[in-house]
Amino acid sequence: MNLRNNWIILLVGFTYISSAQSVVVDVRKKTYDTTDSLVIRSLFDEALTNGKSYSQLNYLCKVIGKRITGSQQAENAVVWAQKEVEKYGADRVYKQRIQAEHWIRGDKEKVSIEGDREILLKSCALGGSVSSNGPLRAPVIEVKGIEDLKNYDVGDFAGKIVFYNEPMDKKLINTFEAYGACVSQRYSGAAEASRYGAVGVLVRSMTTLTDHFPHTGSMGYRPGIQKIPAAAISTQDADILSQYLVDNDSAIVTMEFNCYTADRTVKTNNLIAEITGSENPEQIIVFGAHIDSWDKGEGAHDDGAGTVQCMEVLRLFRELDIHPRNTIRMVLYMNEENGNRGGKTYAQEAKKANESHICAIESDRGGFSPRGFSIDARSDQIAQVASWEGLLEEYGLHFFKKGYGGVDIGPLKIEENRVDSSLFLMGLYPDPQRYFDYHHTDDDVFENVNQRELELGGASMASIVYLVDKYSYLFR
Amino acid sequence: MNLRNNWIILLVGFTYISSAQSVVVDVRKKTYDTTDSLVIRSLFDEALTNGKSYSQLNYLCKVIGKRITGSQQAENAVVWAQKEVEKYGADRVYKQRIQAEHWIRGDKEKVSIEGDREILLKSCALGGSVSSNGPLRAPVIEVKGIEDLKNYDVGDFAGKIVFYNEPMDKKLINTFEAYGACVSQRYSGAAEASRYGAVGVLVRSMTTLTDHFPHTGSMGYRPGIQKIPAAAISTQDADILSQYLVDNDSAIVTMEFNCYTADRTVKTNNLIAEITGSENPEQIIVFGAHIDSWDKGEGAHDDGAGTVQCMEVLRLFRELDIHPRNTIRMVLYMNEENGNRGGKTYAQEAKKANESHICAIESDRGGFSPRGFSIDARSDQIAQVASWEGLLEEYGLHFFKKGYGGVDIGPLKIEENRVDSSLFLMGLYPDPQRYFDYHHTDDDVFENVNQRELELGGASMASIVYLVDKYSYLFR
Repeated sequence: MNLRNNWIILLVGFTYISSAQSVVVDVRKKTYDTTDSLVIRSLFDEALTNGKSYSQLNYLCKVIGKRITGSQQAENAVVWAQKEVEKYGADRVYKQRIQAEHWIRGDKEKVSIEGDREILLKSCALGGSVSSNGPLRAPVIEVKGIEDLKNYDVGDFAGKIVFYNEPMDKKLINTFEAYGACVSQRYSGAAEASRYGAVGVLVRSMTTLTDHFPHTGSMGYRPGIQKIPAAAISTQDADILSQYLVDNDSAIVTMEFNCYTADRTVKTNNLIAEITGSENPEQIIVFGAHIDSWDKGEGAHDDGAGTVQCMEVLRLFRELDIHPRNTIRMVLYMNEENGNRGGKTYAQEAKKANESHICAIESDRGGFSPRGFSIDARSDQIAQVASWEGLLEEYGLHFFKKGYGGVDIGPLKIEENRVDSSLFLMGLYPDPQRYFDYHHTDDDVFENVNQRELELGGASMASIVYLVDKYSYLFR
Repeated sequence: MNLRNNWIILLVGFTYISSAQSVVVDVRKKTYDTTDSLVIRSLFDEALTNGKSYSQLNYLCKVIGKRITGSQQAENAVVWAQKEVEKYGADRVYKQRIQAEHWIRGDKEKVSIEGDREILLKSCALGGSVSSNGPLRAPVIEVKGIEDLKNYDVGDFAGKIVFYNEPMDKKLINTFEAYGACVSQRYSGAAEASRYGAVGVLVRSMTTLTDHFPHTGSMGYRPGIQKIPAAAISTQDADILSQYLVDNDSAIVTMEFNCYTADRTVKTNNLIAEITGSENPEQIIVFGAHIDSWDKGEGAHDDGAGTVQCMEVLRLFRELDIHPRNTIRMVLYMNEENGNRGGKTYAQEAKKANESHICAIESDRGGFSPRGFSIDARSDQIAQVASWEGLLEEYGLHFFKKGYGGVDIGPLKIEENRVDSSLFLMGLYPDPQRYFDYHHTDDDVFENVNQRELELGGASMASIVYLVDKYSYLFR
């Protein structure tokens, strides 16, 4: 635990693979020093003993509340965050105008199975869904995911409500992989079913739990295809509906939702705050999270946690008087949940202004105990980040692997579509076991975030920003 | 993620340290094969999709409940566990008689500050404390930990209640280190203060949280020193009492407890269940947890989680038809919390019977997301275990470091005090951030255990038992 006083110049990071065929040896330079270990210790010490992220999250969740794009709460959150980071003393704090769709849930959400005794299913509209235009009554047909549609005859879905019931695979240790494997039924289920004449869609909630919360989330239609209403039902109720179909051969379901997308887009904002680089102010390391949330619960893990962790990164740099060489820029993106206009606008504006980004880092996987970073980069860049494991493992960070960066930072890489680009992306990777217990539900509330886990994530973000900044020349 | 089909014979585990002075290269044999990766995958798959540990924990917590040594619930737990593991088809299931003290909390627990308005402090007696014999009224003197006593004059404590108020250090990432650093005030605080004439002791609860739960735990007296009552107060109330002393110079506190230790010891039991080794039945790999708990909450994390994980190991071996080469033996120890008679008796009986243990493994750090194992062993043995990281890291297991084994398995090593002994100890190391939020309180209940985290821990225990068994010859 006290290695930090001993090392001076070290070489580590061997990967050695030997088989009958080949021997590969990859030696990387370990480029950290005693100063780095002291700085990182001080970041964690400050976050754990004097951290502000937990009380900030309390405010964001309990005073401001859930904050879907276009809502007053979303606007309030941006105003609040701006004031807070101005207090921390960022060099530049400004809003970036974006334009986004405004979806409104409405006050009518009901799904029930018809019968001698009506069975109510706990449900909520998927974000972006059209209204059912009053009660929509139709027979139900159950399928697994999208892929399962092709196992039916073209006429099987006409006039019916399609019930997508593919569960998340509990065997996958990384629950995000399980989510990724079947979220297409939620996003594209309505568009696909509508092609075959379906009149509505019910989707099993995206969680490994069997519980009573419906999990909302985004969905989209396709041009030229009839828009039909789509709703999530809780996993408990998905099991009940599925069993009902086994016991009764058929079921008539009524779904009634009055959600809608407003005719006019809304003008809203990303919030940006910077500390100017002392050596290369024109080179940017961006780190961020999304300040909007679904209109369920309080958006505590998704992504209140990431929001306050990023604010904490700025505070830690100021509090500990760390002067970055490059400009470090926090972006709190609006509209990640239903349109990603924040991330896309940021990327477009960056391109227009011909800005140069070294790296983009995101925290949007919940405020759980951090384990490392998922890295979307060249293999030498990944190896470089992984070479810091010796510095970071005492803080529980051991995962430095190729993987997905994040929804908000993705567009930056797409816009910077150049062969010679060295831009790379990283996503904070917290322990993933509990994320989908709360994701997009009324249970995603402040009480379900642990203070120490949240604080460790903020310090981890600050540490990686510090290291990427200091050693940015190694990532070219 | 799909490495498992590729490797055949591999050499890994390089440690390379280079400085101006020296080069050390340590090459270890990686001794696992494709079969191992398939077996471990099947252990996790079964635990995550068909695991029984969560429903077992539900029963242990909600039907049986808290279970301090000597209570009817503790006896019920042993009877229940015996029936359950018999159902799984262990080759031998038997009880091991132990004799232990029986401490009873009583129905009177009150601490208050005297004044115009009485201030009640949330409190509970420490396990083993004597009664206050009616209300005990005395002035309070605040100190930090045990070490702080020597900063006072000998006469300062006479007739007073000593208030130990050393907080756990939030900066330590491993909260068990923070606990270890100041738990002496709870265990020995009364004995030490009594030497200087103190009449009672209040101890700040052992948690990094500021909350309203008093955390109980064990304490001990010293022969020849007057026994004085000792209680924990919540961290919130410790802060209130400390501030009161700042504002008022002095405080008169009344403490009233009617707890006591029964005159006669009780006869109770460890529960043991084995699968006989196919090649070396006389060689034993023991793995265990403690079935008793404090008389607070439901003993869910401490150590209901470990208990059901160990039962799950047996079930997994039977369900997947894994035949160990050596005998694998589950021990559910009684009395870990207040006397450790279970662990000590097991070790003594093992010595008497001249049994040969390869390894002892314990799960007693809560049912949180597993990260690896803390290993009390020779460095070559630690290196051997660590060489399995390539197999286990996809399950989130990355921590294989020298460290403490566990309270229940410790006596086995002490009894086997031989120079040539190759016995080594391992403790499952789950993420430690939340453990002390619940530890020894009314909040240590089933609802605070996450199903997937619990199940991953059971599969981790099964995996390490499988590997140590298969490669036991490498640990001699």
